[in-house]
Amino acid sequence: MAEAAKKASVKNQGLRQLGKTAPLPASPDDAILERVPNPHPDTAYVARFTAPEFTCLCPVTGQPDFAHFVLDYTPGAWLVESKSFKLYLGSFRNTAAFHEDTTLTIGKAIADLLEPSWLRIGGYWFPRGGIPIDVFWQCGSPPEGIWIPDQGVAPYRGRG
Amino acid sequence: MAEAAKKASVKNQGLRQLGKTAPLPASPDDAILERVPNPHPDTAYVARFTAPEFTCLCPVTGQPDFAHFVLDYTPGAWLVESKSFKLYLGSFRNTAAFHEDTTLTIGKAIADLLEPSWLRIGGYWFPRGGIPIDVFWQCGSPPEGIWIPDQGVAPYRGRG
Amino acid sequence: MAEAAKKASVKNQGLRQLGKTAPLPASPDDAILERVPNPHPDTAYVARFTAPEFTCLCPVTGQPDFAHFVLDYTPGAWLVESKSFKLYLGSFRNTAAFHEDTTLTIGKAIADLLEPSWLRIGGYWFPRGGIPIDVFWQCGSPPEGIWIPDQGVAPYRGRG
Amino acid sequence: MAEAAKKASVKNQGLRQLGKTAPLPASPDDAILERVPNPHPDTAYVARFTAPEFTCLCPVTGQPDFAHFVLDYTPGAWLVESKSFKLYLGSFRNTAAFHEDTTLTIGKAIADLLEPSWLRIGGYWFPRGGIPIDVFWQCGSPPEGIWIPDQGVAPYRGRG
Amino acid sequence: MAEAAKKASVKNQGLRQLGKTAPLPASPDDAILERVPNPHPDTAYVARFTAPEFTCLCPVTGQPDFAHFVLDYTPGAWLVESKSFKLYLGSFRNTAAFHEDTTLTIGKAIADLLEPSWLRIGGYWFPRGGIPIDVFWQCGSPPEGIWIPDQGVAPYRGRG
Amino acid sequence: MAEAAKKASVKNQGLRQLGKTAPLPASPDDAILERVPNPHPDTAYVARFTAPEFTCLCPVTGQPDFAHFVLDYTPGAWLVESKSFKLYLGSFRNTAAFHEDTTLTIGKAIADLLEPSWLRIGGYWFPRGGIPIDVFWQCGSPPEGIWIPDQGVAPYRGRG
Amino acid sequence: MAEAAKKASVKNQGLRQLGKTAPLPASPDDAILERVPNPHPDTAYVARFTAPEFTCLCPVTGQPDFAHFVLDYTPGAWLVESKSFKLYLGSFRNTAAFHEDTTLTIGKAIADLLEPSWLRIGGYWFPRGGIPIDVFWQCGSPPEGIWIPDQGVAPYRGRG
Amino acid sequence: MAEAAKKASVKNQGLRQLGKTAPLPASPDDAILERVPNPHPDTAYVARFTAPEFTCLCPVTGQPDFAHFVLDYTPGAWLVESKSFKLYLGSFRNTAAFHEDTTLTIGKAIADLLEPSWLRIGGYWFPRGGIPIDVFWQCGSPPEGIWIPDQGVAPYRGRG
Amino acid sequence: MAEAAKKASVKNQGLRQLGKTAPLPASPDDAILERVPNPHPDTAYVARFTAPEFTCLCPVTGQPDFAHFVLDYTPGAWLVESKSFKLYLGSFRNTAAFHEDTTLTIGKAIADLLEPSWLRIGGYWFPRGGIPIDVFWQCGSPPEGIWIPDQGVAPYRGRG
Amino acid sequence: MAEAAKKASVKNQGLRQLGKTAPLPASPDDAILERVPNPHPDTAYVARFTAPEFTCLCPVTGQPDFAHFVLDYTPGAWLVESKSFKLYLGSFRNTAAFHEDTTLTIGKAIADLLEPSWLRIGGYWFPRGGIPIDVFWQCGSPPEGIWIPDQGVAPYRGRG
Ligand SMILES: [Ca+2]
Ligand SMILES: [Ca+2]
Ligand SMILES: [Ca+2]
Ligand SMILES: [Ca+2]
Ligand SMILES: [Ca+2]
Ligand SMILES: [Ca+2]
Ligand SMILES: [Ca+2]
Ligand SMILES: [Ca+2]
Ligand SMILES: [Ca+2]
Ligand SMILES: [Ca+2]
Ligand SMILES: [Ca+2]
Ligand SMILES: [Ca+2]
Ligand SMILES: [Ca+2]
Ligand SMILES: [Ca+2]
Ligand SMILES: [Ca+2]
Ligand SMILES: [Ca+2]
Repeated sequence: MAEAAKKASVKNQGLRQLGKTAPLPASPDDAILERVPNPHPDTAYVARFTAPEFTCLCPVTGQPDFAHFVLDYTPGAWLVESKSFKLYLGSFRNTAAFHEDTTLTIGKAIADLLEPSWLRIGGYWFPRGGIPIDVFWQCGSPPEGIWIPDQGVAPYRGRG
Repeated sequence: MAEAAKKASVKNQGLRQLGKTAPLPASPDDAILERVPNPHPDTAYVARFTAPEFTCLCPVTGQPDFAHFVLDYTPGAWLVESKSFKLYLGSFRNTAAFHEDTTLTIGKAIADLLEPSWLRIGGYWFPRGGIPIDVFWQCGSPPEGIWIPDQGVAPYRGRG
Repeated sequence: MAEAAKKASVKNQGLRQLGKTAPLPASPDDAILERVPNPHPDTAYVARFTAPEFTCLCPVTGQPDFAHFVLDYTPGAWLVESKSFKLYLGSFRNTAAFHEDTTLTIGKAIADLLEPSWLRIGGYWFPRGGIPIDVFWQCGSPPEGIWIPDQGVAPYRGRG
Repeated sequence: MAEAAKKASVKNQGLRQLGKTAPLPASPDDAILERVPNPHPDTAYVARFTAPEFTCLCPVTGQPDFAHFVLDYTPGAWLVESKSFKLYLGSFRNTAAFHEDTTLTIGKAIADLLEPSWLRIGGYWFPRGGIPIDVFWQCGSPPEGIWIPDQGVAPYRGRG
Repeated sequence: MAEAAKKASVKNQGLRQLGKTAPLPASPDDAILERVPNPHPDTAYVARFTAPEFTCLCPVTGQPDFAHFVLDYTPGAWLVESKSFKLYLGSFRNTAAFHEDTTLTIGKAIADLLEPSWLRIGGYWFPRGGIPIDVFWQCGSPPEGIWIPDQGVAPYRGRG
Repeated sequence: MAEAAKKASVKNQGLRQLGKTAPLPASPDDAILERVPNPHPDTAYVARFTAPEFTCLCPVTGQPDFAHFVLDYTPGAWLVESKSFKLYLGSFRNTAAFHEDTTLTIGKAIADLLEPSWLRIGGYWFPRGGIPIDVFWQCGSPPEGIWIPDQGVAPYRGRG
Repeated sequence: MAEAAKKASVKNQGLRQLGKTAPLPASPDDAILERVPNPHPDTAYVARFTAPEFTCLCPVTGQPDFAHFVLDYTPGAWLVESKSFKLYLGSFRNTAAFHEDTTLTIGKAIADLLEPSWLRIGGYWFPRGGIPIDVFWQCGSPPEGIWIPDQGVAPYRGRG
Repeated sequence: MAEAAKKASVKNQGLRQLGKTAPLPASPDDAILERVPNPHPDTAYVARFTAPEFTCLCPVTGQPDFAHFVLDYTPGAWLVESKSFKLYLGSFRNTAAFHEDTTLTIGKAIADLLEPSWLRIGGYWFPRGGIPIDVFWQCGSPPEGIWIPDQGVAPYRGRG
Repeated sequence: MAEAAKKASVKNQGLRQLGKTAPLPASPDDAILERVPNPHPDTAYVARFTAPEFTCLCPVTGQPDFAHFVLDYTPGAWLVESKSFKLYLGSFRNTAAFHEDTTLTIGKAIADLLEPSWLRIGGYWFPRGGIPIDVFWQCGSPPEGIWIPDQGVAPYRGRG
Repeated sequence: MAEAAKKASVKNQGLRQLGKTAPLPASPDDAILERVPNPHPDTAYVARFTAPEFTCLCPVTGQPDFAHFVLDYTPGAWLVESKSFKLYLGSFRNTAAFHEDTTLTIGKAIADLLEPSWLRIGGYWFPRGGIPIDVFWQCGSPPEGIWIPDQGVAPYRGRG
């Protein structure tokens, strides 16, 4: 899937989707991740997106999988346009891939689009077989003096 | 299973297991639920046992299932002897049954043993297929003026 | 949608999906809700299913909607077969409907299938426009002496 | 304010605001609360709206006040159209009134619009002078057999 | 133990322990529960004492047991003097009894001392054999129109 | 203290303290509880004040005591003016009284001032001798059909 | 907006707003951020302001946005005067800007006013499109040996 | 046990258990831990498995023990195949060993199978004798620039 | 205030207040902070005092302010005598000062008294104007190899 | 007390208490802390014991004190035998000492017994005079590459 998803990262500055009726893309291939200029390009800071609304399909069983994502990055010249990010996530709805793969694919697509100095993604997947999987990835080096709070997602604890 | 498990309810007052080496019974059939006299038989009150250590087998797949149980009852002439209760729960370790069935079987075995005026059991099962099942059963009528707090077990919430 | 979804409630006792490869149904029309005999038909108790993995589409925007469902019922002759319930929920993946409608449709489909003495469903929808909607429905009368704990889902609180 | 706000309750079924650019109304007088037909008019159920994004002005100091609202009702012929509800709440942005008054005004406007069999509103205001005020109001009688969960908002506790 | 502990309930109004050096009583027999006049004897209200510092001995093993108690009552002519209550609880330090017995003994001693219209006690015992026991008892009838909040003690949940 | 504190309840409608520099009253005797007309006198609703900032003195030791109060009432003709309520609470700063007495005195002063159909107060006192005391009082009868949520204050639990 | 907001940072030591009737400024341009001398200028410490009461407008839709801010800094010669800080935050009420921009503008305005050795701001925005954005910025270097606790704001988790 | 359990780590790439009926192995000796190729072998990231469903036997008493495990590792060439991991954990069901031993045995088996650059395991055991034991182990060195969040499991706190 | 409060730090080893009736000092000037020998003077460790019972006066309005303090230090030759610490905190009851000033004054008084190698204080103030202020200060260098847990006080979050 | 308690650390490998009736030792002098061989002596890992069941006496008043302890260490040749640890803690039941002293005495006794490369103990004491004391101590140096999670005990917060 890595190949297809990367294609989503068209570095398009003439925003095609904002303020328009934007149908859900059929796959990451069809999604258009967009970027907007960072209003504070000379300032090192962190932007965090929390996305508890994510679903894709299991490549083994074809059944739905669900995840909660948290994405942190230090913007350089660009910010991710948030509506296109939402549509990109939605485009995985009928796509099948393993948890580890999907999490890294999403992280890499954003990293490729924005070329931030640093980016990390936490994928917190709903349990299968009684055992949830979390995937944590980061790339680049945070600018010196940056402040990066913990993502603080509650650990899974079964029942009781 | 109901038949076998009920056999466990030998109403034995000469305690066989307390203060001795008591091996884990191989099945509910082999378990001996014991009872002791209620030191306050003329007083209406509630005893609650919380058992987060329970496991049995899935009758379809043979894989382990896990549950968290809370048992409440209003003692009459008898109390359940707590060590025998622990062993009885442990005896399900290699027994297969559906969640609804197991929960009611346990509740009924204790009710049969103690003949309390009232008893309830909450079975909070770990998720399978992303969907946990809880089972709630009670029998009898609580004595007038009794106080029965909520069991207060946290609802399942997936991730995030 | 009510018409289509009800069709899903084929009262099928020869289970078609359990222990087999069961693809995700394309719509509630194509889903087959199944039921199994209640092992304790003479006992009044409550079964609770918690389903944090639900998604459908918004009828106005076509964008994904997400919800967390909790279903409680008092089984009569039948239990819902849990794998078919999971597949039924999954069949809404590409279906569009309003929150109030979807919640009641699901509740009524199960009620129609099982004819329980009592059933309730809580639909806890993710926020749109900053305002989440919850929908609470129940039907029938619980058998006398039944115990029905609160669903206890945490209220939405925005940020901070 | 009660007079002005009530005027907002134009019982308008040709929705004016949904799917259009809808500017924030300048006051409750200018807001148009809209209603849509209830898809399940013969079914008794509860709809809950949670609105943590509310602000108005203090009538004594002119400073901003903030509140978190939870609205529950049992729909009859109508549902509140959720976008118009959001705009109605937003229209209080430059309106001054006491906490008790604002909470009841909002509750009564919705009750007047929808004529539900029952409605309640909880207004949880941010602290002033170290002491937050909560306001709880309900009207009408819930249909028999309805299920109404607690609103469950956390109590204020200062620091520590 | 019931006999001994009751003796503790000397209905002593000339307070012997308040504002003096009061050594820990060696047993409930030696403890002196004291009472003071209720400053609002004509008003129906509830007083709650929360005692997370309690320990006694296990009658089977001689090892220490620990409990968290919450006592609620509606005062009549008398209030329990709080220092004597603390000393009374401390007097169980070297006393052996079963959980159910100890909880009711304490509740009855206070009820005997104060003759309140209503009293309840919740004993929340630390786990033994992985299974904690809670004991809930109340006696008398609360005066009409009284307000009695839930004790709200968190349920035990093992680990995770 | 009951006598002195009641004097505080001057039923003063020409507000003396709002929008002025109001020094902290030296005692409840010197405090002036004020009331304002209820803007919705024909509507049955509940107003809740949460006051985590309260301190007085211990009548035995002269040391500071601290409490967290929650006051609920159903307004009739009057609302309590919130600034005067804050000053009234502050006036106990150098007053000595027992927990039960102080809680009821405050509740009765407000009840006397407002003559509401119903009022309740919960006083949650900080621990002394390891044992905190809570006091719960209500008076009057709530109007039919009123909605009164739980106060939901967390129980004390020592450490760990 | 950066230009306008910076103008707010008039380094005014003759406090204009404290202890007076201070109307809400119409925009950050009209706000006057004020500073007072640090009573411990030779001591390295951290001051934290938590502001859960913030609202501005969305530059795309004109609809209200809400945020929860936490500001930390190590004072040098000056402290921010807290009333002017509150009014400055309130001045954004009718100002439109993107989340990333607003958060940095506020942080930079305070940094410009106070010239602290170190400052950081966390902006925790309410969800839009199901995905909340958090923005984290800091500038300067904390004095050696300073203690800076985590801001500890709970992560967003949708529903359930 | 270390010897036997290690034998489980057959580095088998032709998956024997996925998509087939896989009975619970009788012991770690009989379990087959399997591995699959890492789809992102050139990327440094962390995978976390949370396993709240674990039970084995106490070597002293033969009674069941329960634990909650969290496993983190940085994949190199291989990922652990999650179904085989679940079966491996299940294979301890009738195995007796001390908490410290079991925790390290599991961690080492996975480390031996996957040869990751870094791995850690937290074993959170249910209380025995009122005192739970947690075991924390890690091996190897995390690749530079990796992000490893805290496991965040709640501490045990007894009752109250 | 710094001058006056420091006078409180009489380094008095003949304890004047312990085990005697100690009236509340009228001001920090009148308080006598006392110290006792550290029983483990050659061991580097941390002592933490948590003081949720603190109140003083606002220097601008004269109204009560409230705070929750946590003090950590590494004892050298001396420990703070805990009863004198409680009385010292109580002595601020009628003293007026700004939050930043009071927090540092208390921290410095203890540092001056004990001359510990390291000390820190967190002052968590109740909200004023909707915005609470926290103050964090530390001095000295912790001995090598010391363990200093986070203070972990919950952040303020307004309502909802 | 340090002298007496250290005597408890008899480095006894022939376990005297495990699997036998072991009465509660009368004092730390009489307690026998035992050790067992570490099954993984060549592996650096952490063992954590959580002990919420601890009580001793106050040396000033003779009244009971209560604490919650968490002990972490990195085993070398030995593990502490957990039953002897439980009995050792129980032996303080009638021993009087200051909080700081008791905490360090326990930590040092275990350190002396096991000679671990590193050990730490957190003593979380119940409040006296409204102010709880926590004591944190560690000794030795953790082996390189060890993983030591936070103890995560909730801070005390009084009421509300
Ligand atoms: Ca699962
Ligand atoms: Ca599952
Ligand atoms: Ca969730
Ligand atoms: Ca939203
Ligand atoms: Ca908030
Ligand atoms: Ca305030
Ligand atoms: Ca146990
Ligand atoms: Ca658990
Ligand atoms: Ca205390
Ligand atoms: Ca949203
Ligand atoms: Ca235990
Ligand atoms: Ca506790
Ligand atoms: Ca405020
Ligand atoms: Ca909120
Ligand atoms: Ca205390
Ligand atoms: Ca508090």
